[in-house]
Amino acid sequence: MKRILIIGIGAGDPDHLTLQAVKAMARADVFFVLDKGEVKDDLTRLRRELIEAHAEGAYRVVEAGDPERDRTSAAYGAAVEDWRSRRARICERLIRDELADGQTGAFLVWGDPGLYDSTLAIVEEILARGDVRFDHEVIPGISSVSALAARHRVSLTRVGRPLHVTTGRRLAEGGATADDLVVMLDAHTAFGDLDGDFHIYWGAYVGTPDEILVDGPVAEVAGRIRELRDQARRRKGWIMDTYLLRRRP
Amino acid sequence: MKRILIIGIGAGDPDHLTLQAVKAMARADVFFVLDKGEVKDDLTRLRRELIEAHAEGAYRVVEAGDPERDRTSAAYGAAVEDWRSRRARICERLIRDELADGQTGAFLVWGDPGLYDSTLAIVEEILARGDVRFDHEVIPGISSVSALAARHRVSLTRVGRPLHVTTGRRLAEGGATADDLVVMLDAHTAFGDLDGDFHIYWGAYVGTPDEILVDGPVAEVAGRIRELRDQARRRKGWIMDTYLLRRRP
Repeated sequence: MKRILIIGIGAGDPDHLTLQAVKAMARADVFFVLDKGEVKDDLTRLRRELIEAHAEGAYRVVEAGDPERDRTSAAYGAAVEDWRSRRARICERLIRDELADGQTGAFLVWGDPGLYDSTLAIVEEILARGDVRFDHEVIPGISSVSALAARHRVSLTRVGRPLHVTTGRRLAEGGATADDLVVMLDAHTAFGDLDGDFHIYWGAYVGTPDEILVDGPVAEVAGRIRELRDQARRRKGWIMDTYLLRRRP
Repeated sequence: MKRILIIGIGAGDPDHLTLQAVKAMARADVFFVLDKGEVKDDLTRLRRELIEAHAEGAYRVVEAGDPERDRTSAAYGAAVEDWRSRRARICERLIRDELADGQTGAFLVWGDPGLYDSTLAIVEEILARGDVRFDHEVIPGISSVSALAARHRVSLTRVGRPLHVTTGRRLAEGGATADDLVVMLDAHTAFGDLDGDFHIYWGAYVGTPDEILVDGPVAEVAGRIRELRDQARRRKGWIMDTYLLRRRP
């Protein structure tokens, strides 16, 4: 039987790796790397450094191009699902052709595989198709959300109250659905158009040497965040940011 | 200056510790331990084992009794805040009396300090009072929610859709507010009274040798979860469980 490990490697700080992830990486014979279309040299390099630091014995790194995603489509969900299916075909081929029976393959996932990541759905899709069989195991990781809260030294939750985790798109469409909100995947800084009096805890590249943190009342800091965000994206070619919104009393 | 580290130590598996947490524990001169009133011998022992494994050089463990919480009060929020203030007084005294200038003290927090944990609020309260001064740093941890999802090999989120994290009390009062819901602190198995057709991914003692996992349509598995939950709580004297609810298509 083949074995697949889906390993959460944390939000960008190499020390976010858990001991469980370190042990899992040491067990892997093959690391599968699908590179996002965008240029994220830093992330690619960091992942390579993690592999070099923690892989043990003979191992191989198998890279494959990631299919392009249709970012122009209005049907966001459908576009993502189509993209995921094409990724699944590629991963299926990698597992079939590049991993021998009895070997262990690893997918390294930024953050936590359980939070807005497609790897688990891809694995489900491959298993459902039934052309290639394997066991699989998931190793949780420090999500960008946990990392953001830790760097701001703030709790995501308040006593007995809910936390909503949502996307920038949803926030832009539906506004704030709770007094404590984590927003991910927000390319359009939807916090700036929010009704209500919120404090924002914003972070980009959290856990990396490029980390930028800003917090304050949205009305006061929204402009500065947008400016820093634009500058950083121009400088690095990509941005990865997340924020917590907390309604002010 | 004194320094306080608030270290997330994961959900119960010693290998949930991150490399960052391991390094932080090695820096600590004093570990502060406030024991919950409930008997949780396993957790106390596990924490002690973590300290013995990762503390370095000369270190001390300072224990203090945790104040009793008024669990009969109808005003849940107020009761928790009162309890937290009394904990803050105890912690303030520990930091003042048991930690010398230039030393580093550590609070070890189960799961992630950012998710339904009071340590950060306690530290804020002490700093706001201003009688004792210190720097502090937060090290994120694997939450019981991440651990639950990993053990079930399921994603907490679906493409472009929100995730609501809430408490058993809120679920019982307000029902399901989203199609994907994580429920924590549910002593009354509120999932059983839920309107709608949900799949549940339930776990108790996740990451420990006592781990119990059940998943299935709520209507089919609610009775079994309640039974397992009662048995386990009787056997061990305490239970720590969490679940993900996902509306079935």
